[in-house]
Amino acid sequence: MATDSYARLLIRCADQPGIVAAVTTFLFQHGANITELDQHSTDPSGGLFFMRLEFQTPKLDLSRQALEQAFAEAAGRRYNMDWHISYAADRPRMAVLVSAHDHAALELLWRWQRGELLVDIPCVISNHDKLRGAVEQFGIPFHHVPQDTAGQREQAEARMLELLGGNAEFLVLARYMRILGPAFVARYPNRIINIHHSFLPAFVGADPYRQAYERGVKIIGATAHYVTADLDQGPIISQDTAHVSHSDEIDDLRRLGRDLERQVLARAVRWHVEDRIIVDGNKTIVFD
Amino acid sequence: MATDSYARLLIRCADQPGIVAAVTTFLFQHGANITELDQHSTDPSGGLFFMRLEFQTPKLDLSRQALEQAFAEAAGRRYNMDWHISYAADRPRMAVLVSAHDHAALELLWRWQRGELLVDIPCVISNHDKLRGAVEQFGIPFHHVPQDTAGQREQAEARMLELLGGNAEFLVLARYMRILGPAFVARYPNRIINIHHSFLPAFVGADPYRQAYERGVKIIGATAHYVTADLDQGPIISQDTAHVSHSDEIDDLRRLGRDLERQVLARAVRWHVEDRIIVDGNKTIVFD
Amino acid sequence: MATDSYARLLIRCADQPGIVAAVTTFLFQHGANITELDQHSTDPSGGLFFMRLEFQTPKLDLSRQALEQAFAEAAGRRYNMDWHISYAADRPRMAVLVSAHDHAALELLWRWQRGELLVDIPCVISNHDKLRGAVEQFGIPFHHVPQDTAGQREQAEARMLELLGGNAEFLVLARYMRILGPAFVARYPNRIINIHHSFLPAFVGADPYRQAYERGVKIIGATAHYVTADLDQGPIISQDTAHVSHSDEIDDLRRLGRDLERQVLARAVRWHVEDRIIVDGNKTIVFD
Amino acid sequence: MATDSYARLLIRCADQPGIVAAVTTFLFQHGANITELDQHSTDPSGGLFFMRLEFQTPKLDLSRQALEQAFAEAAGRRYNMDWHISYAADRPRMAVLVSAHDHAALELLWRWQRGELLVDIPCVISNHDKLRGAVEQFGIPFHHVPQDTAGQREQAEARMLELLGGNAEFLVLARYMRILGPAFVARYPNRIINIHHSFLPAFVGADPYRQAYERGVKIIGATAHYVTADLDQGPIISQDTAHVSHSDEIDDLRRLGRDLERQVLARAVRWHVEDRIIVDGNKTIVFD
Repeated sequence: MATDSYARLLIRCADQPGIVAAVTTFLFQHGANITELDQHSTDPSGGLFFMRLEFQTPKLDLSRQALEQAFAEAAGRRYNMDWHISYAADRPRMAVLVSAHDHAALELLWRWQRGELLVDIPCVISNHDKLRGAVEQFGIPFHHVPQDTAGQREQAEARMLELLGGNAEFLVLARYMRILGPAFVARYPNRIINIHHSFLPAFVGADPYRQAYERGVKIIGATAHYVTADLDQGPIISQDTAHVSHSDEIDDLRRLGRDLERQVLARAVRWHVEDRIIVDGNKTIVFD
Repeated sequence: MATDSYARLLIRCADQPGIVAAVTTFLFQHGANITELDQHSTDPSGGLFFMRLEFQTPKLDLSRQALEQAFAEAAGRRYNMDWHISYAADRPRMAVLVSAHDHAALELLWRWQRGELLVDIPCVISNHDKLRGAVEQFGIPFHHVPQDTAGQREQAEARMLELLGGNAEFLVLARYMRILGPAFVARYPNRIINIHHSFLPAFVGADPYRQAYERGVKIIGATAHYVTADLDQGPIISQDTAHVSHSDEIDDLRRLGRDLERQVLARAVRWHVEDRIIVDGNKTIVFD
Repeated sequence: MATDSYARLLIRCADQPGIVAAVTTFLFQHGANITELDQHSTDPSGGLFFMRLEFQTPKLDLSRQALEQAFAEAAGRRYNMDWHISYAADRPRMAVLVSAHDHAALELLWRWQRGELLVDIPCVISNHDKLRGAVEQFGIPFHHVPQDTAGQREQAEARMLELLGGNAEFLVLARYMRILGPAFVARYPNRIINIHHSFLPAFVGADPYRQAYERGVKIIGATAHYVTADLDQGPIISQDTAHVSHSDEIDDLRRLGRDLERQVLARAVRWHVEDRIIVDGNKTIVFD
Repeated sequence: MATDSYARLLIRCADQPGIVAAVTTFLFQHGANITELDQHSTDPSGGLFFMRLEFQTPKLDLSRQALEQAFAEAAGRRYNMDWHISYAADRPRMAVLVSAHDHAALELLWRWQRGELLVDIPCVISNHDKLRGAVEQFGIPFHHVPQDTAGQREQAEARMLELLGGNAEFLVLARYMRILGPAFVARYPNRIINIHHSFLPAFVGADPYRQAYERGVKIIGATAHYVTADLDQGPIISQDTAHVSHSDEIDDLRRLGRDLERQVLARAVRWHVEDRIIVDGNKTIVFD
């Protein structure tokens, strides 16, 4: 059976008895075979309830549209759910924003090229022209949108929105070293993933490896998170750390950190693409 | 709400559509509020299906016995399930077997004493008398059952069975350095947990730290597994590793390894006590 | 050869050519066989130089006192070194301060009891009386020095200094939840080790597991550091982290964190006892 | 100061007092400033002694050739040393052998391209033609040397030796799935690095991810080692592991394992290039 014959249903609602039974009974009655089911409740009495189901679609007795309408009637409205269904056959379109450091962006392009990252990539946008060659080698359009001063931000972001058009469902900031304005961020709520090169909340802001070096930490880290209007404060998706010692200079931290950033970002993007993440306020539920 | 107001239902059966719906609907109809639900299918078409549910019991509309009878009728027989329900209020009784190394056994007693490991401990049995004082300090009976030659095994195991009586639901071999005979093992199917001081399947048998040292590995490990009649071949529950270097002598490996063994064994025992493990042939499903 | 036949020489001075040759030639000429040699330079041109040597003492041709005098003449003064020699046969005396959480303190006592931590422990001091029984079981004196209000600090610290007398070379704060005053700290410069239950510099101050939970991090950590007058800002000795998920409640973070704290603190104390740590401003050099 | 102004001296000899003093005094007297010094002794009494020094060369008072001759006279012969000096300015030439899986080879080429791996790469050789395009994109010659049956090995290896000529100082098997014959291996003693996709010594031979899946392990691993005539038995350089669960299918193990293989191989190659590895029988000393 092809990978494309799967769909995923994500649900969020107030916790109350009977939700799992209602949802699974509905899917069963319409010919969906559930292959994964994860749930989380913040508190069985009065908390929020989150659920992710993965199910096979070949024997569904309804079209996509009819299924969604039936689900809204059978469960969605009754439990006042926030829900959506995505289909593995529909590849999400992911645009990449990058500055001068290539490792995080290339890690994504490389995984995409070898069929490991199931997205379409409409374009890569950079405030430098430096990575044009490296990106175009993958057959992906590269756009240079300069932004050398804070005053240019408004214009640059307008140009980026124009280039992105309706062509990107989510964005990845793969070491994009410009701060996005709140209006831009509001266009992609919980749909911009950033890789920050520290274990947040430590070392927010600029040059975290230098901050880490100067504090004398014995571990460095990387954090993938959704971007909100508050710099480096958005919901954390994935984090990892590596041990360092007194003999590691700042450049060693950067070198070791690059490997962490590549791993952590690639993992977060895969989870996002597979609809494994639900944002709950300033936290994430990750059904991995 | 008290921790004791929970129960867990573990299920194994042939995979087929409708199981989740049937089980969750049943629990819903009888007043159980599901707080955790994990499932695993080896193959949606013709594979095995495993499920663990944790649910609150205060609003159940049936007694334990009536609930189990009703479940058998509503779902158990229909899907030809292998299932059981355990109640958090019923602390399982865990006996510990140990030889001369104290770290793994003391780690368990220490966690038990501070209320972290929710079991009763009827006794500790050892083929040495060395740890009597350390064990009795915890107020736990200690039995010395010598077994200096292979010829004494039959007699020693008979004595241990006598001491254990019906008083232990599962056993932990916390660095017990005698091989248990097949008849003894058969009395506790998937209910004897051993800690082996290597990352299995590497370094089975005696003195794995020496084997590791002589092979020149750069990692050492520990493995918790259920005991079967085949030495060090039983279903693996949990494993972990630590980095070592050329400057680590055998005694350093042993020292570092002790910390691994304590962590890995404590985790495996907790999972067993919380009914998070299902054995599937020579593998384990761990719903952690 | 007994473990006690070793000594360690720690050196700090301005980096300049010839130091290693001078030191190793000196030791060679006096019959010391070097078994470990570690060095670190912050910058070969104009930086600081740090060195740790471990050497066998049985064939030394000088008494301790004469050796130190000869070293001062041959190398110490010439290179304007800050240096000292310690002998493995001299067990340092370590006092433990603890509040109500027992895990970190008991980990140290347990390692001490089984001969893994080569110190003498003159006493354990606590602002609670709760752990008296657990400590006295090890045959170690326990002193209760209450400190319920900030106003009692001066008096409590005076009492602690009295109890410690000249009997402790270094202190370990094994989850001691009172802030030590600058005058007290100044009595033990770089000789008070604290375990903080987060990956510093994140989550300084009170209840870091709650802070971590509320921020929604995907890792938790523990940090062992020397205490300075600035809370949680002293030189970091050792850090480690563990992965957590959305399903971990605060109490799960605390439970997982306890294991981290025990490991990280035990490692830092071992390094301190083996004279493996040199403090350089707000950083540590760890020759592990 | 440029990175190229460094040299490294590696030494192996019988342990005896005075070696460190003799070597460091020699370098000091000839104007070399030592920036790193690592040593290891298998046993201070009658064991083997290993040392690695990194030193700055700009103020050397002798040419390379004269320095080496002087060292031989001053220390090498006296202590019967096996030693050599390498210069950071001399980039070693590294040939890559690969089969159909591209990830390990591309990781190396990618690090080489961005200036992180300081080697020259004369060519990539493969028993498939599949990766020609990917390799040639980096401007590196690609040679297809088919070897479809065991009977073709002799001829294929002869062809490879012809292609390698004197142009490669060491080889990397980046998932090269053919077994090299003993005569070929003997041409590159301790100069062929292989990445094996398991934590050796577990799962030697073919398809280790399948073996791991079937054994039901909870960790997978990768091992970089030098190739000897015995398959998967050579001295281990670096190893790492990652946690897996019952829900990971073989393809998940392969996907997670690729990331491990890339990291472990890249680290081992960097250590080799920086002359940080000394082989001691079937073990390695790694001065990282």
